[in-house]
Amino acid sequence: MKNVESQVLTYLNKSGIVLNEEEKANIEVTDMGLGNIYEEGLQLVVYINNERYCAKELVMLPNQTCPEHRHPRRINGEDGKQETFRCRSGMVYLYVEGKGQISTKPPAKHAEYYTAQREIILYPGDQYTIPTDTNHWFKSGPEGAIISEFSSNSDDSSDIFTNPNIVR
Amino acid sequence: MKNVESQVLTYLNKSGIVLNEEEKANIEVTDMGLGNIYEEGLQLVVYINNERYCAKELVMLPNQTCPEHRHPRRINGEDGKQETFRCRSGMVYLYVEGKGQISTKPPAKHAEYYTAQREIILYPGDQYTIPTDTNHWFKSGPEGAIISEFSSNSDDSSDIFTNPNIVR
Repeated sequence: MKNVESQVLTYLNKSGIVLNEEEKANIEVTDMGLGNIYEEGLQLVVYINNERYCAKELVMLPNQTCPEHRHPRRINGEDGKQETFRCRSGMVYLYVEGKGQISTKPPAKHAEYYTAQREIILYPGDQYTIPTDTNHWFKSGPEGAIISEFSSNSDDSSDIFTNPNIVR
Repeated sequence: MKNVESQVLTYLNKSGIVLNEEEKANIEVTDMGLGNIYEEGLQLVVYINNERYCAKELVMLPNQTCPEHRHPRRINGEDGKQETFRCRSGMVYLYVEGKGQISTKPPAKHAEYYTAQREIILYPGDQYTIPTDTNHWFKSGPEGAIISEFSSNSDDSSDIFTNPNIVR
């Protein structure tokens, strides 16, 4: 994944987002076990994740899709993850539970695992808050995207993916 | 405060941080009632502030000081505000409770109200988490600073300032 990491660093640099050395060495690149990172996957930089709040940058390659998932309603006796996506650069198609016309397409190979159709398009400066226990997926535009995620505590291992083949 | 707002927009723009129109119209500029914004005060853009988490940009003019204060240990039956400061551009001298040599000076007129002396210097990409109920103040360098603040819920009206003349 060295090539992906270097693209991530280039995108962040272009957007004026500075990482420290530890963060540069710990960029998370995940293909969710699907083996096709350029189509389905995500890259993350975690700034802080404590019991109370979490902040990350989500860095997306061009036309990359983060597969549909939801954060469980309750986890360890607490409310599940609520998150706010703020587009910093590029653009992103965000889909949350609901029906509607959508402007882009989910990955053809796994289309059956994309059910959320309520479309929110985010350009730089736009943001949207996704309630807990809500299916959502998102796809970057042709130039990729950087999304700041502000949220309650994050526990990726509890995410519930619609595609049963996904390993996070 | 029109002149200050326009400086804030210029700084954000230079750093590649995009605001939407509503945010641009709602930049918070506060001199904390001290009447000398260029020496003591703060400018804020609040992205999200809900019961669980909060995210803001703190935009500081050159050599501006945010007066010493702390967030109460408990508020409305919940733990008080904990916050993570992440320097995005410029540089910032952060002081938290403790003694030590400090590299800069608090505003001379109100020096008695600056007691925290444990110095943390933040350059872009550096961050520091301030526990609840801890006195802290911070001052930007000669080029100002932009600090992303990630935190639990924020309730500025409960801040406890060391200088009794401050009105927030």
